[in-house]
Amino acid sequence: MEQQYKIVVDALGSDKGPEAIILGASLAIKEFPNLSITLVGPEALINEKMQEYGVDKARFKVIPAEETITNFENPYTGIMNKPQASLVKAMKEVGKEEENYAGMITAGNSGAILMGSFRFLSDANKTRPCMAAMLPNGKEAYTCLVDTGATIDCTPSQLHSFARLGSDVMKKMYHIESPRVALLSNGAEPTKGNHLVKETFPILQEDKELNFVGNIEGNNALSGDCDVLVCDGFAGNQVLKNTEGMAKRLITDIVVLSKKRNRPEFMEVAQYLMKTYDISALGGGLVLGTRKLIIKARGNSDERAIVNISRMILNHASGEAVLTQKEREDALR
Amino acid sequence: MEQQYKIVVDALGSDKGPEAIILGASLAIKEFPNLSITLVGPEALINEKMQEYGVDKARFKVIPAEETITNFENPYTGIMNKPQASLVKAMKEVGKEEENYAGMITAGNSGAILMGSFRFLSDANKTRPCMAAMLPNGKEAYTCLVDTGATIDCTPSQLHSFARLGSDVMKKMYHIESPRVALLSNGAEPTKGNHLVKETFPILQEDKELNFVGNIEGNNALSGDCDVLVCDGFAGNQVLKNTEGMAKRLITDIVVLSKKRNRPEFMEVAQYLMKTYDISALGGGLVLGTRKLIIKARGNSDERAIVNISRMILNHASGEAVLTQKEREDALR
Repeated sequence: MEQQYKIVVDALGSDKGPEAIILGASLAIKEFPNLSITLVGPEALINEKMQEYGVDKARFKVIPAEETITNFENPYTGIMNKPQASLVKAMKEVGKEEENYAGMITAGNSGAILMGSFRFLSDANKTRPCMAAMLPNGKEAYTCLVDTGATIDCTPSQLHSFARLGSDVMKKMYHIESPRVALLSNGAEPTKGNHLVKETFPILQEDKELNFVGNIEGNNALSGDCDVLVCDGFAGNQVLKNTEGMAKRLITDIVVLSKKRNRPEFMEVAQYLMKTYDISALGGGLVLGTRKLIIKARGNSDERAIVNISRMILNHASGEAVLTQKEREDALR
Repeated sequence: MEQQYKIVVDALGSDKGPEAIILGASLAIKEFPNLSITLVGPEALINEKMQEYGVDKARFKVIPAEETITNFENPYTGIMNKPQASLVKAMKEVGKEEENYAGMITAGNSGAILMGSFRFLSDANKTRPCMAAMLPNGKEAYTCLVDTGATIDCTPSQLHSFARLGSDVMKKMYHIESPRVALLSNGAEPTKGNHLVKETFPILQEDKELNFVGNIEGNNALSGDCDVLVCDGFAGNQVLKNTEGMAKRLITDIVVLSKKRNRPEFMEVAQYLMKTYDISALGGGLVLGTRKLIIKARGNSDERAIVNISRMILNHASGEAVLTQKEREDALR
């Protein structure tokens, strides 16, 4: 019999309400026969919807929760003072060693996810968790960008920790034997960089467990010349959001051009790019440095995002490599 | 008679050799009847080429120079120890008040341009010059990104100076009465940002001569919600290069798609985007904080870039607004 896996899904915290997440969970259960899900959220709604979608009761269970930590709350006080919040309950659940969960999905408040990860799920070394994104690169694969905004002002030793965590996750998730780690800088030469980059460079160079390939400039950030791109959360946030913003802009330009010139066939180009650069469908942010794999879905995630993230967690747990970008495009064709 | 303008063009320093720049200068002279050019570079070659292109001798003059400051040289020692370098000669020439030049174009070493600007062309306040880029934004206009990499680690007072210089140039170059100034941050809320952004925020807010509109996130960096986007040179370099890198990538994707699916009509989309996002044709980096307008052309600039930059300088000098992005697209159509 195929190995079975369990994941925890926080049904609250999405901009689209719990319905999109519940629907996503039902689709994931249907798509992956070896998956069962523990949903944390409004019990009656979850049971009603899962019945409506015809999901086998043996494949899911519900942990009731009605409360959330909103984006306007202080993450620390949210985690400390809201034991009934779905995020807190979900984190406590996924942390139960006896349950042996493969990971967890949540669309909750990023700050609270990090705070909760540190409080409930930190590893033996008490590593400070960071947030990574898997971005499609120019070599038809993914680049792990870390940190994407969890720690805005960083020290060289934090960047060192990000490099190690990023390298580890690329080994495990994409079966890259010796992931190429680069530092984001304002020039490729070792002498380039701000104070932080210049101080971090020799530390990464001296760590023989890392395959450090040097500095990479912004125009090559996602060229595929590295597997892990290390930067502070401020710069990482710029790369992530600028990448997304530019993809959106060019796609919008094509849609406008298609209408203006009355060329409906141009929409095919827009659709193709939308699939390739739909970062939300790729599965949000990965929390690294925890005992369990926690993936944050975007606040505006739809049901397909939940299915995609479930697949990432299953692949990570089973040791199967996640689809390359090319395989993904072929699958989408 | 129409007002006449003179500019200085450094013929050396381009990756494509002096020929591309000389050709560009000849085209600019033909396109703008009120322009004459002082070329600094290899005298025999310039005279030979200008004759070949049939340029009237009354419209240009040559200051001989054979030496350059390369990209591998220390900018400071280059400026101090190479009085014969074309860049140094060009800067001294443009600084001559009696000549009343409208500005200067060079494709030389960025560090040396800044160092030379400070040494030969700094304003009465001895402002530290910075480098800005005019990027096409989502509202069919331009956003002035400052600093783009001249000062990598910045202080809040430097960011304040960038904000003022950016605001001034947008008033003069695009006739914006009260340019909207924003700080690049990792969130729109005033509480977001790294230490530098958080310290700079109240300083910009208190300066009543600035129209400060708050923080802007990376995905809205070029949405057109601000006219001047202020950040340190490290972050600005990321925005500039990531914007360029993403535009190139999506355009390449379209070219590949066109071939793979055998749909030659898709090339029309690629060509349209190439025109809109051809940052090099927009005219490189503007040095702000100097007595004269200095514009750095990209190292790989072709002759069209020289013509476009000449137009920017003429418009800046004459007080005519530069083309909006929409006008530019219409002109290119």
